[in-house]
Amino acid sequence: MSAAETVPSTRERIVEAADTLFYQRGFEKTSFADIADAVSLSRGNFYYHFRTKDDILAAVIALRSDRTQSMLASWTQDAATPVDRLRCFAEMLVRNRHDIQRYGCPVGTLCAELAKLDHPAQGDAGMIFGQFRDWLRTQFNELGLAQHADALAMHLLARSQGIAALANAFHDEAFIQREVDLITAWLATLVPPAGPAQRPRRKTAS
Amino acid sequence: MSAAETVPSTRERIVEAADTLFYQRGFEKTSFADIADAVSLSRGNFYYHFRTKDDILAAVIALRSDRTQSMLASWTQDAATPVDRLRCFAEMLVRNRHDIQRYGCPVGTLCAELAKLDHPAQGDAGMIFGQFRDWLRTQFNELGLAQHADALAMHLLARSQGIAALANAFHDEAFIQREVDLITAWLATLVPPAGPAQRPRRKTAS
Repeated sequence: MSAAETVPSTRERIVEAADTLFYQRGFEKTSFADIADAVSLSRGNFYYHFRTKDDILAAVIALRSDRTQSMLASWTQDAATPVDRLRCFAEMLVRNRHDIQRYGCPVGTLCAELAKLDHPAQGDAGMIFGQFRDWLRTQFNELGLAQHADALAMHLLARSQGIAALANAFHDEAFIQREVDLITAWLATLVPPAGPAQRPRRKTAS
Repeated sequence: MSAAETVPSTRERIVEAADTLFYQRGFEKTSFADIADAVSLSRGNFYYHFRTKDDILAAVIALRSDRTQSMLASWTQDAATPVDRLRCFAEMLVRNRHDIQRYGCPVGTLCAELAKLDHPAQGDAGMIFGQFRDWLRTQFNELGLAQHADALAMHLLARSQGIAALANAFHDEAFIQREVDLITAWLATLVPPAGPAQRPRRKTAS
């Protein structure tokens, strides 16, 4: 990355501000003026970059998709085993617990809102769920669970969405931790028995 | 109920229409005019019944709360055992699968939207989750699981919310059924062993 690229462009600043506002207030509630105010831009300058709120939405979804891809890539790289990677996913709920309690899951709440609006971008927003689903399926595949990998991916994704929804409704941090612990315990039951060559202490599947 | 009460009043028709519109389009997106149009009322007649959209929201939440209470009471009455009652709850996802795939869960999506709007009614909307939570806790209590009854209630509520969120994003009916089957299988593991007096075939806890 060159030095020039480290300073965000006006366009990038608009998309970042819209990303935050869409998450914190919702897409429908956020006006053009709200976003322009957040980046201290005149309407004219703003319109130079984006003509419609839908154009901004498309850019926000693209930004979130890029960030999701980077995050998944970092988990793939940093965690040694598929179970460790799946734990990274579950622990995201604990790491982001403050925002989740206040605003819910950014992916789930945007998808839900766009579905109600019958918005043409709902499929694109759903693609971010798709990125998580694909990555989770890969981990379950690598655990030797190819036959059920997609069902397991959807199950874990659903568990995480449910936790976010109730954490948002009840503002209960202990609940998040308890449910993530349940997921961690469940993941431990999926570890395949160690082969005869490597013989670490074997985890029981209960 | 008297004969006169079977014909909905204008006020009731407004609240029913708002209930549907808030669910299908969202609270923020639904205007006063949309609701007045849905019940073919003039603005003047409409304002006679409700001065603000927040007043309508309060009435919609009260309506949903009443309906929830009736539904929970009918499950309590119609299902013979706590596990059967808990199954009624899980099967609600299958019964309502068409609406859920299109609009999500009415309780979860309203709570999520009001949280983002930082709306004063968010606590009242959350009370409907509270009704489910209390009822589920009662069933787990009656299963002899008093110590964990509330955690189990929250767990099951979260599972149902996650299923609704992903069914809404992916429009996948088979996924709903598969996850409800998983819940049913899980519930079967919670059945206490039969005492010596009554000895039906015992369910294994796996």
